[in-house]
Amino acid sequence: MLHFDSDYMEGAHPRILEALCRDNGSQHVGYGLDGICGEAKDRIRKACGTPDAEVWFLVGGTQTNRTVIDSTLRPYEGVVAAESGHISVHEAGAIESSGHKVITLPQHDGKIDAAELRDYLETFEHDENHDHMVKPGMTYISHPTEFGTLYSAGELREISGICHDHGIPLYLDGARLGYGLAADGTDVTLHTVAECCDVFYIGGTKVGALFGEAVVITHPHLIDGFFPQIKLNGALLAKGWLLGLQFNTLFTDGLYERIARNAIVQAMRIKRGFAEKGYRQLFDSPTNQQFLILDNETMDCLRKDVSFSFWEKYDDGHTVVRFATSWATKPEDVDALLQLLQHP
Amino acid sequence: MLHFDSDYMEGAHPRILEALCRDNGSQHVGYGLDGICGEAKDRIRKACGTPDAEVWFLVGGTQTNRTVIDSTLRPYEGVVAAESGHISVHEAGAIESSGHKVITLPQHDGKIDAAELRDYLETFEHDENHDHMVKPGMTYISHPTEFGTLYSAGELREISGICHDHGIPLYLDGARLGYGLAADGTDVTLHTVAECCDVFYIGGTKVGALFGEAVVITHPHLIDGFFPQIKLNGALLAKGWLLGLQFNTLFTDGLYERIARNAIVQAMRIKRGFAEKGYRQLFDSPTNQQFLILDNETMDCLRKDVSFSFWEKYDDGHTVVRFATSWATKPEDVDALLQLLQHP
Amino acid sequence: MLHFDSDYMEGAHPRILEALCRDNGSQHVGYGLDGICGEAKDRIRKACGTPDAEVWFLVGGTQTNRTVIDSTLRPYEGVVAAESGHISVHEAGAIESSGHKVITLPQHDGKIDAAELRDYLETFEHDENHDHMVKPGMTYISHPTEFGTLYSAGELREISGICHDHGIPLYLDGARLGYGLAADGTDVTLHTVAECCDVFYIGGTKVGALFGEAVVITHPHLIDGFFPQIKLNGALLAKGWLLGLQFNTLFTDGLYERIARNAIVQAMRIKRGFAEKGYRQLFDSPTNQQFLILDNETMDCLRKDVSFSFWEKYDDGHTVVRFATSWATKPEDVDALLQLLQHP
Amino acid sequence: MLHFDSDYMEGAHPRILEALCRDNGSQHVGYGLDGICGEAKDRIRKACGTPDAEVWFLVGGTQTNRTVIDSTLRPYEGVVAAESGHISVHEAGAIESSGHKVITLPQHDGKIDAAELRDYLETFEHDENHDHMVKPGMTYISHPTEFGTLYSAGELREISGICHDHGIPLYLDGARLGYGLAADGTDVTLHTVAECCDVFYIGGTKVGALFGEAVVITHPHLIDGFFPQIKLNGALLAKGWLLGLQFNTLFTDGLYERIARNAIVQAMRIKRGFAEKGYRQLFDSPTNQQFLILDNETMDCLRKDVSFSFWEKYDDGHTVVRFATSWATKPEDVDALLQLLQHP
Repeated sequence: MLHFDSDYMEGAHPRILEALCRDNGSQHVGYGLDGICGEAKDRIRKACGTPDAEVWFLVGGTQTNRTVIDSTLRPYEGVVAAESGHISVHEAGAIESSGHKVITLPQHDGKIDAAELRDYLETFEHDENHDHMVKPGMTYISHPTEFGTLYSAGELREISGICHDHGIPLYLDGARLGYGLAADGTDVTLHTVAECCDVFYIGGTKVGALFGEAVVITHPHLIDGFFPQIKLNGALLAKGWLLGLQFNTLFTDGLYERIARNAIVQAMRIKRGFAEKGYRQLFDSPTNQQFLILDNETMDCLRKDVSFSFWEKYDDGHTVVRFATSWATKPEDVDALLQLLQHP
Repeated sequence: MLHFDSDYMEGAHPRILEALCRDNGSQHVGYGLDGICGEAKDRIRKACGTPDAEVWFLVGGTQTNRTVIDSTLRPYEGVVAAESGHISVHEAGAIESSGHKVITLPQHDGKIDAAELRDYLETFEHDENHDHMVKPGMTYISHPTEFGTLYSAGELREISGICHDHGIPLYLDGARLGYGLAADGTDVTLHTVAECCDVFYIGGTKVGALFGEAVVITHPHLIDGFFPQIKLNGALLAKGWLLGLQFNTLFTDGLYERIARNAIVQAMRIKRGFAEKGYRQLFDSPTNQQFLILDNETMDCLRKDVSFSFWEKYDDGHTVVRFATSWATKPEDVDALLQLLQHP
Repeated sequence: MLHFDSDYMEGAHPRILEALCRDNGSQHVGYGLDGICGEAKDRIRKACGTPDAEVWFLVGGTQTNRTVIDSTLRPYEGVVAAESGHISVHEAGAIESSGHKVITLPQHDGKIDAAELRDYLETFEHDENHDHMVKPGMTYISHPTEFGTLYSAGELREISGICHDHGIPLYLDGARLGYGLAADGTDVTLHTVAECCDVFYIGGTKVGALFGEAVVITHPHLIDGFFPQIKLNGALLAKGWLLGLQFNTLFTDGLYERIARNAIVQAMRIKRGFAEKGYRQLFDSPTNQQFLILDNETMDCLRKDVSFSFWEKYDDGHTVVRFATSWATKPEDVDALLQLLQHP
Repeated sequence: MLHFDSDYMEGAHPRILEALCRDNGSQHVGYGLDGICGEAKDRIRKACGTPDAEVWFLVGGTQTNRTVIDSTLRPYEGVVAAESGHISVHEAGAIESSGHKVITLPQHDGKIDAAELRDYLETFEHDENHDHMVKPGMTYISHPTEFGTLYSAGELREISGICHDHGIPLYLDGARLGYGLAADGTDVTLHTVAECCDVFYIGGTKVGALFGEAVVITHPHLIDGFFPQIKLNGALLAKGWLLGLQFNTLFTDGLYERIARNAIVQAMRIKRGFAEKGYRQLFDSPTNQQFLILDNETMDCLRKDVSFSFWEKYDDGHTVVRFATSWATKPEDVDALLQLLQHP
C-alpha cells in the first residue's frame, strides 16, 4: 500500500533522532529555559535576519494559532482570515473557544486578496455601527495555504502594508512553511516572511520534526505575558529542550529548507504524471499538496493500492482528492504510483 | 425633527407606566421569584399554548442570545445562523466571547433557506474531518429578520423538522416578534412559533416595554442550570418583578399584539408613500422596518427634517436607508414625512 | 408582614418615577448616547471632583463587575479580592466564566488588610514560579462590604498606594456606596473614593433607582474598547437614557446621599433595639445591613411576622440573620419590629 | 553539579527510544487513530482492570487537566480541589481561563479531607443562595499530591463514595502516579484508582516518557465529544502514534511501575541521609519528592554542588527545599549527595 494521505505520517528526520539519542540521558531544566533552546532560537533569529525577534517553541499548529491569537487580541477583537483558512474551518472552533471571532474574507485559491482586505478594513472603520461589531485585531494568512498555493513577495508586502496602515498585526501560519520556501519559482524567503509579518510560525511537525512549531515575534512588544499564556493554554512542554533540539537540528546547515525540497520534487512528479494522463487540478499548487479531479472509477481503482485524502465531491462522476508528499516521501513510492496511473 | 431611526426610541406603553407607578412602593422578593413574574409567566404560557413551557425574563436582546446559546451548547458546538443574523453581525462578538462559533449560512432577504440548512447539516455529518470542525448544536433564526422579512408557517415547520431530524434545537430571536405577528398576510401565530421552536424569546424592548425579553423554553429539559447561567452572564435583574410587571401588562387583553399593529399600519403608509413616488425597496418588508433606496440628493434633503438609519451604499448615486416605526409612532409624524416626500 | 430581607425590594424614588413619566413619550437615541446620559455623567463627574473621568451606565452589579474586570485584565491576570467578596462567592462564577481567577485574601469583617495585600503582592513577585501562577492584575474591594462594614479614608489610601506601587489598578464595588457615604462617623466621601480608585461604581439598584450602576473610570486610559465590551457582555441597554434619567435625578440636589440617610437611621434604630434586648451582632456594621445573632426560639417567633435573611448557623442554639433597610424603609415598619422585640 | 531540581530533567527510558528509532520511518495515520495507539489503549485497559474504559493520550499535565475539566463541567460548574492542588496554584489560571472556578478546600499534607469535602457539598446544597454560587461539578485530587504524599485506598474509597453520593465525578491527576504506585507501604494499586475514579490520568512525562499523559475515563459516558474538545484545546498531537508508542512501551512487561521504583529507592536514601544528620522534613513523603527544612548556611553550602528547588521560607534562619528523584536518577548521584552531607 502506498500512502499519500498527509505530510505528517512519518517520524523525524534521522539527524533529529540522532541528536535525541545523544542527549536523552542528559539533564535539562524545564519549560524551554535550557541552553539547547537558546541555541535554536539564535539560529532561527539568524535565519530570519531578525536579531531582536522573540522566538518561542510550541507543540502543534492549532495550539500555536490559538495561543498566539488569543494572546494578541483584546476581548472585543477578532482575527481576519480566508474562509478556507485552517483557523476558520479545521480547528474545531479553537479560536472561538478562546473568545474571538474569525472574520472571514473570500478565498482565492486559498489566499486573501489585498484589495478585499483593504475594503473590509475601511468599510469597518466607516461603519457607524462598528462599536456593535467585532473589531479586526489581527490578520491571519497561511503560507503555503491550505490549498498548497503561495503568496508572492509582492502580495505579502501589500497585505502587510495594509495591515500596518490600519494598525493591525499580520500573522502567518507556516505549518508548511518549509514547502513554501522550497517551491519552484517563489520569490518569498524566510527574510521576506520576517520582514512582512509581526508574528509567524515555522512549522516543524510537517517538515522534519516529530512535533513542534517555532513562533517568531518580529515585533517584540506585540504580546505581553506570552509565557504564562502559553502555560494557561496548556501549550508549555515540560521537557522544552525536546523542541529546542529539533529546531536546532533543522536550522543547522540549512537542513530545514533542504529536506523540504524532496517533498516538492516528488509532488511535481505526481503533478506531471496526472497531467500527462489528462487529469485536471483544482488548484495550481507548486507545493507538496496536489489536488486532483479524478473520475470516480479511477479513484476507486487507485484506492485499492494507494491511500490519499478525499477532498470534496466535484460532480456526480468526479471527486477532488489530495495527494500529499513530505520531506520523507520515497521516490520509489512515487514511481509505483505513476506506474499504477499508466496501468491502472 | 421627525425620528424614524429605530423602534426603541420611546419609553413604555402608558399602561406599563401606570402599573409601575401603582406597584412602585410595594415590596417584592428579588430575582424574578415574585408573584407578578409568576402571573406573567402563566399569561405567556397561555398565549403560546404551551402549559409546560419554562418562561424566564431577561433584560435585553444580545444578553438573551448570549445566555440562551451558551447555556444550550456544549463547548465544541456552534450555532448556525444567517450571515445577516444579529448574532453574526451586530453583537460585538458576544457569542464568540462565550466560546462558540456562529456558523453562517447565506441569507435570502434575511432568512435562511431550509434546503441549504439541510445540505449543510448533511454535509457536516458526512465530512470525514467533522471531528476537527465546529459541530452545529443549535439553529438560530430571527423573526422578523433583521431586514424586516418574515418566515411563513410552512417555512418555520420545515426548518424545525430539519433541525429535529438532526437532533438540533431551533431557537428564534423574537426581538421584534410582535411586529411579525401583527403583519398583514402572515400565517405565523405565537402558537406556530411555540410549536416549531425549542426556545424563543418574545421581545419587549422594541414592542411596548421599557426593556425586557421573555424567553420561552418549550422543550423544558433543553437547558439545565439556566438560573445560575443567567446570573453568571450578568443577566439577572435584582428587581425582577419589573420584568414581570411589564410582560404581565403586555399579555393582558392582548395588548402586545394590539399595540404592535400601529407600527405595521404606519410602516405600510411609509412604504406606499415612497412607492408612489417611485422609490424602490431593498427588501419587501411587511413589518416595521422599511429599507428604501434613495438617491443621495433626496436623502440629503430629507435629512434636514427627518432622522433615519444609514444602511449601506447602493451605488455611487444611491444609498439604502432604513425607516423604523414602532408601537408609539404617531400618525401625524408619518403625515409630516409623507408631506415632505411630496414637497421635499 | 414586615420585610427586611434585602435593600432592593422597593421600586424607585418617587422623583425618578416622576421624571420617567415626564420623559416616557419623548424620543431618544439608543445606547446611552443621548443628552440625558450626558447630563447625568457631568453631574457625577462633578460630584466626584473628577472632571476628566469616564462615566458609563450599566444595569446591575454582577454585570458591572464582570464587564469592568474582564475589560481591564489581560488573559493571564486575575483579580485580588476578600474571600467574602461578592465576586468571590455570590456571582455564580461570573468572573471565572469570563476567564479570570478571583485570587482571595483573608477577610477581616469583610475587608482586606493592607499589610496582607502588600505581602501577597511582594511574595508573588518574588516567587520563582510566578510565571506559572495567575498574575494579580487588579484589586477589588467593596465599600460598604458584604458585611456592612466600611473602610476608613486612611485604609483606602493605604490600599490604593500599595496597588499603585505594584502597578495594579484598584476597583471599588459600590453597590451600596450611598449607604457607606451616609453612615455615621465615616471619613470617606465620594471625593475620597474617586481619589483612591482607578475605577469604581456608584450603585443605583440598591439606593433609589429601579436599576442601574454608574461606572466611573478615574484613570481614563485604563480600559480600551469599553463600549464594545459592554455590548459583548450583554450589558448595553438599548434605552440607555433610562439609566441617565435615574442617575440624573439621583445626582440632582444631593438626592443620592440624602435618601441613603434614611436607611442608616432606620438601621441604627434596629441595631440599638436588638442591643438593648441583649442580642449580639456578628459585625459592628454602621450601614444598612445588620447581622444579628439570635437564639433559634426568638428567630422562629419573629419569623411569623417579619421576613429577614438567614445568614449562617452560629451554634446549635443560635443563628446569624441579616436585617436590611433601604432608602425606602418606613419608620413605622421599624417601630413595629421593635415592638415585636419588646413583646415577642 | 548534581541535579535534583525536578523529575522531568531527563529524556525517555531507553526502550522508548529504541521503539521510536525502530518505528520512525514507518507511516501512521494521524491523531491517535493508528494501531499502536490502539494497542497501547488495550494494555492500559488491562492494567487498570477496566475493559470498557475510554483511553486517550494527551501531551502534558496542565493541558490534560484543562481539557478534562472543561469537557466535563457545565458552564455554571466549578471543580473542587485542595488549596495546594496543581490546578489551584501552578497552572497560570488554565482552569479559570476555560471558564471554571477552582473551589478550594483546606489541604492536609496536600490532601483533601473526606469529612471536609462532605461538609462542603452538604452546606452548598442547603445554602439558600446556592443558585448564586458556583456549583461543584467535579472533585480533583492528585496522587501523589504536590507534596509527595499519598491517599490510602480507604481514603480514596471514602472520597469516591462522597462524590458519587452527590452525583459528582471524581478526577485524579496522576502526573506522578507511577511513583505513588511504587511507594513502600501504599495499598493503592492501579485497580484501586480505576475503581474509585470516574476519570484519571497516568502520567508519562515524569515517569519514563519524553512526554504524554494517558487519560482513562472509567465511566465512559462521562464526557461527550472529547475528541473535538481535545482538538479545540490545542491538545491533539498530529503524530499521535508517538504517544501510543511510549505508553505501549511503558505498559509492556510492567515497565511503568518497575522504573518508578528506582525513584522511590533513591528518594528514600536521600530521606534517610538527611534524617540521620538531624534535618527535619516538612511532609513525610513516601514518594520521589522530599521536602527538607535546611538551615540557610547548609543550603547555601550545598547549592555550590547541587541544584534543587526552593520551596518556601521556613523562618529567618531556615528554608524548605525540595529534592526530586526520577526513574532515571543515578545511584551514584545520590551517593555523591550523601557524601556532601557528611562533609559539607
